[in-house]
Amino acid sequence: MGRTKNLQFLRISNRASIIKALALGYASSRIELATHLGLSKMAISTLVNDLIADGFIEEKKRGPLTAPFYSEETSGKKPTTIAIPHKKINALSIYIKRYEVHCVITEIQGNILYHDFALIPKGSDNTYLSNILIHLMDKALNEHKDYHFAGIGVASVGPLDIQKKRILYPPEFYNIGNFDIGELLENRYHQPVFLDNDMNASAMAEQFYGVGKSVDSIVYVGFGTGVGAGIIIDGKLLHGSGGFAGEIGHISIDPNGPLCDCGQHGCAHEYTTISTLLQDIPPTSINELWGQFQDGLLDDKVYNRIASCQYALKTMLLAIANLFDPQVIVFGEVPPKLYPIFLAGMETYMNEHMFHHGFQKIQLYPSSFGENTPLIGSAALVFQRVFDGKLPLTES
Amino acid sequence: MGRTKNLQFLRISNRASIIKALALGYASSRIELATHLGLSKMAISTLVNDLIADGFIEEKKRGPLTAPFYSEETSGKKPTTIAIPHKKINALSIYIKRYEVHCVITEIQGNILYHDFALIPKGSDNTYLSNILIHLMDKALNEHKDYHFAGIGVASVGPLDIQKKRILYPPEFYNIGNFDIGELLENRYHQPVFLDNDMNASAMAEQFYGVGKSVDSIVYVGFGTGVGAGIIIDGKLLHGSGGFAGEIGHISIDPNGPLCDCGQHGCAHEYTTISTLLQDIPPTSINELWGQFQDGLLDDKVYNRIASCQYALKTMLLAIANLFDPQVIVFGEVPPKLYPIFLAGMETYMNEHMFHHGFQKIQLYPSSFGENTPLIGSAALVFQRVFDGKLPLTES
Repeated sequence: MGRTKNLQFLRISNRASIIKALALGYASSRIELATHLGLSKMAISTLVNDLIADGFIEEKKRGPLTAPFYSEETSGKKPTTIAIPHKKINALSIYIKRYEVHCVITEIQGNILYHDFALIPKGSDNTYLSNILIHLMDKALNEHKDYHFAGIGVASVGPLDIQKKRILYPPEFYNIGNFDIGELLENRYHQPVFLDNDMNASAMAEQFYGVGKSVDSIVYVGFGTGVGAGIIIDGKLLHGSGGFAGEIGHISIDPNGPLCDCGQHGCAHEYTTISTLLQDIPPTSINELWGQFQDGLLDDKVYNRIASCQYALKTMLLAIANLFDPQVIVFGEVPPKLYPIFLAGMETYMNEHMFHHGFQKIQLYPSSFGENTPLIGSAALVFQRVFDGKLPLTES
Repeated sequence: MGRTKNLQFLRISNRASIIKALALGYASSRIELATHLGLSKMAISTLVNDLIADGFIEEKKRGPLTAPFYSEETSGKKPTTIAIPHKKINALSIYIKRYEVHCVITEIQGNILYHDFALIPKGSDNTYLSNILIHLMDKALNEHKDYHFAGIGVASVGPLDIQKKRILYPPEFYNIGNFDIGELLENRYHQPVFLDNDMNASAMAEQFYGVGKSVDSIVYVGFGTGVGAGIIIDGKLLHGSGGFAGEIGHISIDPNGPLCDCGQHGCAHEYTTISTLLQDIPPTSINELWGQFQDGLLDDKVYNRIASCQYALKTMLLAIANLFDPQVIVFGEVPPKLYPIFLAGMETYMNEHMFHHGFQKIQLYPSSFGENTPLIGSAALVFQRVFDGKLPLTES
């Protein structure tokens, strides 16, 4: 299949488009749906009535209009407001970081309804990680027995085999590796499992619910224990042939820089991870550090480290701008205290130094949901399939 | 529209898929089409019969089978071979380089049927370029009055405004700029015009007819007076929000490198353009140069220049591999004499130094059609729309 289309495909695809428009707030009535989706009012009505019968949409009574908007003349029949009932379509999802596992339940409108997490202690192996996962998920499900889930999302540190739903061998991940998380969770919970790396998941969160909402090309750059990017083009994640796209930290920006594990010198991530930035720094606050940096009061080592970080960020930003020309770039996992280093002046610099500067403007934002972005992202991996019509909307 | 689908869309889309499969050699009978496209034999037969009635497909008589394959037992009814008649669906197209304009006629199977070109002399302005274009195209059309054209493709140096079909202000392009090539050609020839930059067009040529044929993610890197990339992901060109994606030459790889026009130091293209490589070199052949380089006989200046070129190529290749993870990378516009510098050992180096090396293999090729690649690319801009169902297949 894939290359050709049939009638059943049309119905599924149109139902999914309606659910997406309502969940993300692009429409809240039949008329708005018709406009937004370019379908006839009659076609929309048939589809919406079916979805109401199936319980995925409800009609909303409008409250009394407030004075300035209400008058006798304009009080004719208004379009009935429709919406997806809250807590009706949910995702159970997991976010695996290097030292923690998080478990969340999120509704299709993007709101986290439940959140729990556990640490991954030193020396953990696959069995230990399995046990943590099952403990967290059993608990979440037990406490939400009347909830319906469209599927299970897993956002994880990479590298991953996304097709086989397997965590390969992430660096510094104790004794965990070649971990068949898809098989484990599908066998136990009888739900479809969708695995993707944390950067891609975060990019989807921004695309659906955050600053990428009104655009269709967005690059999410996450800074944590490493640097990586989730790249969305025309509304779709760029995975690459092996699922390994987005390794923005491995652009070599200085032939005389430190040797990286990959064999290149001066890879960008060497200068920009927060752990690099804070290494061996006296226990002062980042705000204080930034003040001293601006006043030229820092010792050379720390001064140069901040300057190198900013140079690497600029170079990475320009590589992203010149290669992908996205509408929006999001810097994620950056603690707000580091904004002066990571964000100040960067958008202007990027827009002035892009090769084709002056013709367009790329916007740079911090991530919309702070450290919740990858959590919402893990749920977005499920909702993405609902929106694309890949997951059937079955009655409940 | 765009988000939803209807029946008319289905028919157009399926007809286009059949034309694509036959033009590119993925199928040559109804049965092969059914398998390739995942449609029923009955659906295929209806669509194919319509296309035969419209003249876009013909049944082919099979010649007598040669002895080893022919026997009484296997001589039962064979599937009738079908094909698009030669010269039936053609593109008229233009390739605008910095110093030349080329005009070609190409059939949908990718064969160039006609080729002419003219120089763009120093000091040329928009009027002069208009005159060259019209001269070349009028001549081509006059000599091919009985040909049918699906549209006009224009591959050009950038930057371009692809939506408005306008050549903006390419560097070192004399007095030519803000040139409404779409309006000019559509008004005169009453055909739809499709403009894209030379790198993107070349990437499409490789995708349809060259080494990218069996894959759907491919990066074409062209080296000429500048360096640029055409990036295809999931079979679609990456244009970016303003049409400016693919500026691979403006990754800064050395903070101590020469200052680039863009404001960065050490942009990759500074080291890899052929003009840079050959600048001030004594009039010796590239082969001789390469031999002397390998034997360590070159003077330091030339030796370092070749080494810098190779370092920049490696760094660019790894940036492409780590960011896009494509199946295939094509090095275009490289004269075969420079293969030892541009290609030797590069594929192995890239695959060993990718961040996630060992999990997948990216293939590196020289371009399939040499200097004809952008010419076929300019035609591919038209055929792409035919294959996507964006151009109606009208009777002729």
